[in-house]
Amino acid sequence: MKKKEFIKHGYQIIDKIAEYLSEADKYPVRSQVKPGEIKSQIPTTPPNESQNFDEILNDFDNIIVPGLTHWQSPNFYAYFPSNTSYPSILGELMTSGLGVNTFSWETSPAATELEEIVTDWLRQMIGLSDDFVGVIHDTASTATLCSILTAREKMSNFESGKKGIGGKIFRVYASSEIHSSVDKAVRIAGIGTDNLVKIPVDNNFAMRADLLRQAIESDLKAGFTPMCVVSAMGTTGSLAFDPIAENYKICKEFGLWHHIDAAYAGSAFILEEFKHLSELASHCDTFVFNPHKWLFINFDFSAYFVKDEESLIRTFEILPEYLRYKRGSEVKNYRDWGIQLGRRFRALKAWFVIRSFGVDELKAKIRNHIALGFMFHDWVKSNENFEILAPVVMNLVCFRLHPIGLDDESVLNGINVQLLDDINSTGKVFLSKTKLNDKFAIRMVTANLNLTEQHIRDAWNLIVETSDELIRKRLLR
Amino acid sequence: MKKKEFIKHGYQIIDKIAEYLSEADKYPVRSQVKPGEIKSQIPTTPPNESQNFDEILNDFDNIIVPGLTHWQSPNFYAYFPSNTSYPSILGELMTSGLGVNTFSWETSPAATELEEIVTDWLRQMIGLSDDFVGVIHDTASTATLCSILTAREKMSNFESGKKGIGGKIFRVYASSEIHSSVDKAVRIAGIGTDNLVKIPVDNNFAMRADLLRQAIESDLKAGFTPMCVVSAMGTTGSLAFDPIAENYKICKEFGLWHHIDAAYAGSAFILEEFKHLSELASHCDTFVFNPHKWLFINFDFSAYFVKDEESLIRTFEILPEYLRYKRGSEVKNYRDWGIQLGRRFRALKAWFVIRSFGVDELKAKIRNHIALGFMFHDWVKSNENFEILAPVVMNLVCFRLHPIGLDDESVLNGINVQLLDDINSTGKVFLSKTKLNDKFAIRMVTANLNLTEQHIRDAWNLIVETSDELIRKRLLR
Repeated sequence: MKKKEFIKHGYQIIDKIAEYLSEADKYPVRSQVKPGEIKSQIPTTPPNESQNFDEILNDFDNIIVPGLTHWQSPNFYAYFPSNTSYPSILGELMTSGLGVNTFSWETSPAATELEEIVTDWLRQMIGLSDDFVGVIHDTASTATLCSILTAREKMSNFESGKKGIGGKIFRVYASSEIHSSVDKAVRIAGIGTDNLVKIPVDNNFAMRADLLRQAIESDLKAGFTPMCVVSAMGTTGSLAFDPIAENYKICKEFGLWHHIDAAYAGSAFILEEFKHLSELASHCDTFVFNPHKWLFINFDFSAYFVKDEESLIRTFEILPEYLRYKRGSEVKNYRDWGIQLGRRFRALKAWFVIRSFGVDELKAKIRNHIALGFMFHDWVKSNENFEILAPVVMNLVCFRLHPIGLDDESVLNGINVQLLDDINSTGKVFLSKTKLNDKFAIRMVTANLNLTEQHIRDAWNLIVETSDELIRKRLLR
Repeated sequence: MKKKEFIKHGYQIIDKIAEYLSEADKYPVRSQVKPGEIKSQIPTTPPNESQNFDEILNDFDNIIVPGLTHWQSPNFYAYFPSNTSYPSILGELMTSGLGVNTFSWETSPAATELEEIVTDWLRQMIGLSDDFVGVIHDTASTATLCSILTAREKMSNFESGKKGIGGKIFRVYASSEIHSSVDKAVRIAGIGTDNLVKIPVDNNFAMRADLLRQAIESDLKAGFTPMCVVSAMGTTGSLAFDPIAENYKICKEFGLWHHIDAAYAGSAFILEEFKHLSELASHCDTFVFNPHKWLFINFDFSAYFVKDEESLIRTFEILPEYLRYKRGSEVKNYRDWGIQLGRRFRALKAWFVIRSFGVDELKAKIRNHIALGFMFHDWVKSNENFEILAPVVMNLVCFRLHPIGLDDESVLNGINVQLLDDINSTGKVFLSKTKLNDKFAIRMVTANLNLTEQHIRDAWNLIVETSDELIRKRLLR
């Protein structure tokens, strides 16, 4: 491809993206294709000859687009969002054009130093105390793994990375509602998922600190080595908040490491009205949140904060000759801050987004999303055929259809499975699910950048109509 | 930012990138800034108000660009390259516009199925046997960690991820020239770097298979549990090739896992003239190479291949309710193929690159790079003041200044440290270094997409002039 063609097709794709994002709500949200349908349209062998880029873009439109689940559609209410935004796309574009690698200061000083700056901006925005330093990871899964590894190293006097995990059996504590990434991290770190102690939750799906204390005490008696507590500020299931202050106190008392996973909810800490939460956020050794979910910095961009920079580096640092350069103490070399050696210049898009929006506008967007969440919550609550299944703190509403007089739990689970499937099959909206107290719950997250009240109104009408239809069918049967 | 502005600035950045890449050789390759110089120009607090994007781009030009080390410059001969290309940038752009997440089939069928297709294209291109299936990882570091974790799980009957690493002391074998990512992976996996047995190399810096066998036998006698051998096809230091067939035979004999790291050199396996190497590549359980180095698919894009898909998935699979969806057996859910849950739609850029170039053109580019490498090699070899320090197989030349009559090794190391620093300080080229047999070696890699003979000629002239100057200064002293 020549420069002229690149410019031509570059403009084309910029146009395409602008069109796509401004009418993303026109597509069936969840792709309607069947397994294998996309694959079957693509040649199984690579072409030897160069193909025309118009042809490639044509195939993109005809083959790829129908197979997409449209995460940027305002009708996408599933999982947690993965918001992109115009300035973020421009940042990613620039990053891929520059193609610099940020593994050490020397390999691009600006990339390293901008990462220091923007992670500190983010720290200030969410109100973390100034004894934290930040680094960008791809995902919270990776950051949480890094935290658990650092905990493992500290608890073994930096011996387990060297000698392997020997006689000690380390124990990690988290609530039964914690994200699966903790299970994965404990597994990867060689601690074993059997040694991840799941602490029961209270009626709000938050960890019970009294049971955490009991578990640690009983583990100590049994000869285990308690190592680390992972607390959630906003669980994936229902956005529950673990008792951070109590958990931190327990960690201090027993000499345990405390990691906070605020992957989704952390972005909302930029709001004054969540000061009571953000003030708790510093009660830990490490903290992670994902601006790629709800701060309009597109995936991947996870912000990880540590108080003890030295321990993090000692966990990962390996210095072969080809990576040894002077200035080691004056500058940061982010290759020693995580798993990967190579690292993209991700700070740029964050710089673009924060400056282009401005913090005030970011606040306004998030504030509006929360208002929309409560609006939806109120509709659900005031409909006698529906039931709210968890407290709503921000903008995740867990609910189910619960027709009056129908109280058999297994039947209720069955009709809600059916309801969600019917709703998603329309392609008009996409919601996801969880289980809360063994009850099948439908999750609705209202956090897409371009979401309007009308979108949610339409979604709610669809949910009600689909439910009515389902109830009617059951009655006729 | 409004749609109209996005389009305007999008065009601007496309133009900027086109300009940048076509004149990347005009910039000082290694950034000439001092530590802290970039940071000091950026406000330490984020702006509350939205800033004009022209202003942001202006700051990008004035503050960021001088702090970049220009990886895309043809004068960048350091480390291994991290090539971007026009179609790859367009692919990344589209990916960031779509903002879909590829953690399960359902979250975007096209992204999952295209990943199956393009990784299989890559498999065919480099001549891996058809019992391998592929998956995209960010870096070879991550892929190698995944391989070692799968080996650990197999060797413990899938118990160590569950129960933790207990009584057994696992041993991993790799040559003394292996990449630091193996040290890191062994550390992360809880095996311990002390249990990474570094096997000495021969005169070509390749692992000695006889010493590998001895090490395994002696470990077995000592009660260790030999687990895995990591072989390099192209070491980072000097592009040495370990004895793959012998190592694989030893692995089979002792029931060990065999991982091949061909991060850089793997791309060259698309050439018929390296058939003797690519035929060896299937002699393993897992294989990784980085199209983001030398196949013009921009960073990050590492292609990881496994024969035993089931074992890989059993290593990582965790199924909380919110991730459970039907069709588990019909489709691939790549969240279970690695560490991260969230995953970018990376397949798209590979599809764009392979189709836009065509395999023939990719071959021509790589073939040319290798020819340029040998040309440089011949110049070095024929200059009596220089010495080649390792066999040249492709396009990495390890050399040093070795003036006639000067044979003190420590003096030679000193003047080569000085030489490299003098060369890089000009900003005209950027080379990196390694140690081979305790000799300080300068590494020259000729693999930039836009590299021409003239660039290398200029680089060589600069090296010779700088050396002459250095020798002259030493004589006058």
